[in-house]
Amino acid sequence: MIPNMVVMFVNGKFCKDPEKVTADDFFITGLNVRKQTSKQLGVRLTLSTVDQVPGLNTNALSIVRIDFAPNGSLNPPHIHPRAAEILTVLEGTLYAGFITGNPDHRIFAKILKPGDALVFPHGLIHFQLNIGNTPAVALAVLNSQNPGVVTIANTIFGATPSVNPDVLSRAFHLDKDLVTKLQKEEWVDPDQLY
Amino acid sequence: MIPNMVVMFVNGKFCKDPEKVTADDFFITGLNVRKQTSKQLGVRLTLSTVDQVPGLNTNALSIVRIDFAPNGSLNPPHIHPRAAEILTVLEGTLYAGFITGNPDHRIFAKILKPGDALVFPHGLIHFQLNIGNTPAVALAVLNSQNPGVVTIANTIFGATPSVNPDVLSRAFHLDKDLVTKLQKEEWVDPDQLY
Amino acid sequence: MIPNMVVMFVNGKFCKDPEKVTADDFFITGLNVRKQTSKQLGVRLTLSTVDQVPGLNTNALSIVRIDFAPNGSLNPPHIHPRAAEILTVLEGTLYAGFITGNPDHRIFAKILKPGDALVFPHGLIHFQLNIGNTPAVALAVLNSQNPGVVTIANTIFGATPSVNPDVLSRAFHLDKDLVTKLQKEEWVDPDQLY
Amino acid sequence: MIPNMVVMFVNGKFCKDPEKVTADDFFITGLNVRKQTSKQLGVRLTLSTVDQVPGLNTNALSIVRIDFAPNGSLNPPHIHPRAAEILTVLEGTLYAGFITGNPDHRIFAKILKPGDALVFPHGLIHFQLNIGNTPAVALAVLNSQNPGVVTIANTIFGATPSVNPDVLSRAFHLDKDLVTKLQKEEWVDPDQLY
Amino acid sequence: MIPNMVVMFVNGKFCKDPEKVTADDFFITGLNVRKQTSKQLGVRLTLSTVDQVPGLNTNALSIVRIDFAPNGSLNPPHIHPRAAEILTVLEGTLYAGFITGNPDHRIFAKILKPGDALVFPHGLIHFQLNIGNTPAVALAVLNSQNPGVVTIANTIFGATPSVNPDVLSRAFHLDKDLVTKLQKEEWVDPDQLY
Amino acid sequence: MIPNMVVMFVNGKFCKDPEKVTADDFFITGLNVRKQTSKQLGVRLTLSTVDQVPGLNTNALSIVRIDFAPNGSLNPPHIHPRAAEILTVLEGTLYAGFITGNPDHRIFAKILKPGDALVFPHGLIHFQLNIGNTPAVALAVLNSQNPGVVTIANTIFGATPSVNPDVLSRAFHLDKDLVTKLQKEEWVDPDQLY
Repeated sequence: MIPNMVVMFVNGKFCKDPEKVTADDFFITGLNVRKQTSKQLGVRLTLSTVDQVPGLNTNALSIVRIDFAPNGSLNPPHIHPRAAEILTVLEGTLYAGFITGNPDHRIFAKILKPGDALVFPHGLIHFQLNIGNTPAVALAVLNSQNPGVVTIANTIFGATPSVNPDVLSRAFHLDKDLVTKLQKEEWVDPDQLY
Repeated sequence: MIPNMVVMFVNGKFCKDPEKVTADDFFITGLNVRKQTSKQLGVRLTLSTVDQVPGLNTNALSIVRIDFAPNGSLNPPHIHPRAAEILTVLEGTLYAGFITGNPDHRIFAKILKPGDALVFPHGLIHFQLNIGNTPAVALAVLNSQNPGVVTIANTIFGATPSVNPDVLSRAFHLDKDLVTKLQKEEWVDPDQLY
Repeated sequence: MIPNMVVMFVNGKFCKDPEKVTADDFFITGLNVRKQTSKQLGVRLTLSTVDQVPGLNTNALSIVRIDFAPNGSLNPPHIHPRAAEILTVLEGTLYAGFITGNPDHRIFAKILKPGDALVFPHGLIHFQLNIGNTPAVALAVLNSQNPGVVTIANTIFGATPSVNPDVLSRAFHLDKDLVTKLQKEEWVDPDQLY
Repeated sequence: MIPNMVVMFVNGKFCKDPEKVTADDFFITGLNVRKQTSKQLGVRLTLSTVDQVPGLNTNALSIVRIDFAPNGSLNPPHIHPRAAEILTVLEGTLYAGFITGNPDHRIFAKILKPGDALVFPHGLIHFQLNIGNTPAVALAVLNSQNPGVVTIANTIFGATPSVNPDVLSRAFHLDKDLVTKLQKEEWVDPDQLY
Repeated sequence: MIPNMVVMFVNGKFCKDPEKVTADDFFITGLNVRKQTSKQLGVRLTLSTVDQVPGLNTNALSIVRIDFAPNGSLNPPHIHPRAAEILTVLEGTLYAGFITGNPDHRIFAKILKPGDALVFPHGLIHFQLNIGNTPAVALAVLNSQNPGVVTIANTIFGATPSVNPDVLSRAFHLDKDLVTKLQKEEWVDPDQLY
Repeated sequence: MIPNMVVMFVNGKFCKDPEKVTADDFFITGLNVRKQTSKQLGVRLTLSTVDQVPGLNTNALSIVRIDFAPNGSLNPPHIHPRAAEILTVLEGTLYAGFITGNPDHRIFAKILKPGDALVFPHGLIHFQLNIGNTPAVALAVLNSQNPGVVTIANTIFGATPSVNPDVLSRAFHLDKDLVTKLQKEEWVDPDQLY
């Protein structure tokens, strides 16, 4: 959003009267606040995209704080359909990586300590695991104001309505009974808390 | 690639002397030829991207023929990191769908018969299952000359070197033993044959 | 259109409430149905763009079925102002080509049989002629949800109001009388039927 | 081209050592010099694109001087496959217009005098005719460093090798004999002189 | 804006009913009319962007006439946040240049006479000074329908409310008293007249 | 850079043999290390762009650590010609803002404490001042792998060769003697140390 443009709808978002835009429309706060992590993954994402920060509209950036509980909490394999990412560790020790597509499926991974960052190329699967016994915190930035998050396992096994179990059994080399059992479980996204 | 431009490298591809470019650089053949499908998934992708068709360079399109064996063959859940897709069924009956990202994980799926097509939005997970007892054939088109294919299960369980099993156990709600067993299996991509 | 975005107007198209979007918004049917061809050109285009398929919005793809009557029916020289194209022959035998711009005006053409395809670079003039004595069918895909079609002769000689005949006489090396005679004729676009 | 970037090939153009770039790489001269017009169309285009001005690389602009002889000289119907245009008249009186695509073929035209300008949307057919009895001059700007020019009649009737005359006869409602006669004529592009 | 599209809001601009669009929506006039220049800088910009010319919407071009009073009038250092530029001199003699960013700050400048033009790369600071004793006129074209103009000194010293004088004192190596004095002056933009 | 693409030159950067790409090509370190600040501005920028991190190529992101000495150190008014930015404060207290272009010159500014962030729209002038009596640290992210930095005062007064002092005197309302004095000073960019 560019304050001195007269706009009404831009990219599907309703824009304020430019005379009423203030610095608060470009402001994000609380990125330093430790968030309670969920039980299932031990992780918590706090997103600032165009939905939270109107001034990001047309500026093609988002920022995300990620809290990790100690000992194995996980931001599980996921993609952003419309963005690349740089993830920077602020606290703790993460094992982070991404995997290239067919036919190589090469993993590019690093142990990241505070001050380390890793680039996740546009649209590739990536993840972070807290391999330390303390909480960890990371800041991730994405080059879209609306990057999307597709947590792979949750999307595939937690879809509504359920994906045909034959699809998942054959794709993942799993018994169909195990697939249907998995489909009945609760899949808590890393940006949700319970 | 635009024939009357003097080019050498464009988008990382070596370009011919424009005077030597011919119609064959823009030509694709064999899209009507039934391909032998692989044993594992019963499916076979034949891609025409900029790697096969130099004339696609700068023209942001690819085309893929997909052969499905009868009775449950599967183009398993996958994404294209850099493209949206329209898939058109030429023969047989497919159950095809895509799943939206967090937080909804809604599945949008249809049974597709010859002459039916489905749009897969940019970067979202999608799949096709042959629910008929005959072979099926589809033509998929993508809006990138280099769309990439990330077959989800193969990429995650077949990565080289292997992903830390703790990541996959926690992400997919699977016993760690099962994860390591899966990681030892062979994961045949739908564009490979064996 | 991305189902889990709250949108109202995107790219000038009114978007549904995302909760009311269904798989039908991403679905195309009838691409296998033989269409009656027009008398004038013997051809018929059936387009699926964002105007017919709301889910194509933001996904930069369209698909077109083209029916050709036997013996010389023609999809006449035309351009897409906002797209490149891949045309695939499903039935019959087409002579298809495109022509590069100034100063070379080189023609790149091929005889296409079922399973053959040709790339038409962004914005260049191209055409297809049915050189067989049977009906022909092609599927064309374009990398825009709103590619536009400019059938050259129809646009130039069938403009409303008419183009100054001096322009066309001098441009096309035609007698002015012939130009004005041509301007009075009916110019049936290949996506119209009569 | 951005002078303080270390570049070698960008967009298929060889880039100088940035330390050797000078203001001359960004400089165009002679836009005020009357050019001899060709006999055939009475017009002459002088282009400044990335081929003449290396500094236009990555800057997505070109500029063209157009000279028109008195009394009916013509920049004939043409398209730019990769650009929109603003044409400004500096001297004389032009009748200029563009035509929309299927199905409307609406002509949008104006008589332009010095200081008047007209926008030609991306990829649409447009032309200018000198309706005055004095020379005319226009400056056209395009939003690509490599816009391309496709002079319609010259491209279609002057293609090398020739387009199948059946295509042109049916498309343009012309006798095949007239088509083959036209195909033997000389088609002088407005950016050539003879 | 493309006349045969049904649009309502595109890029935040309200679009007319396409049936009511006329050639006037694509027309600009008065580019040859000498404009009164302001006292402060001796310069006057007359802009034609999407705000004045609806047909520029989606066509990524603007055009600007710049009038310069004799003897030292100045289009002061400025940037266009969203465009590159070609500036062509129609009358008079300008000294024009641009400066590259950190770390080189190289100036690329030329004396421009009628028929000379200079490219200003996207987002770099540039300026023009009338070094002749006659009026000068230039036409500038930009590759955005909404390029923006940031006149550097006016923006920094004439901001509302004022920038903290410590910022400007330290950045510009100026006494704080001089900064606050400058901040109280009137800063007339080159597109304003008084 | 996408590891499983065969590339040689992309965006003017030489790409490694993809088989030799490693995680280190996507890795950044030292973002937590306090850097010595320069004497002149009391600030220090440490950039990670495509020049330092090859894996950023085609991924349109950069990251910058900014160190501020206590008590009034300044990242002076500057622009990024090819990027928008989000700046996040990690330590200390910054007064940060941006200014809109002509005609409003509105300042949008906030006092930022740890965990606060501000969006700087694409191409607009912005700055940060350490208003605390302790060191401050910020992380800035930009949506280009090659964003460029144009420190305004340094670029204008420290250009090589010098800008005509008449330009700067008139633009900045400064005596010509003061301008030439300023032009002889040393202008240390915030990404340089001395």
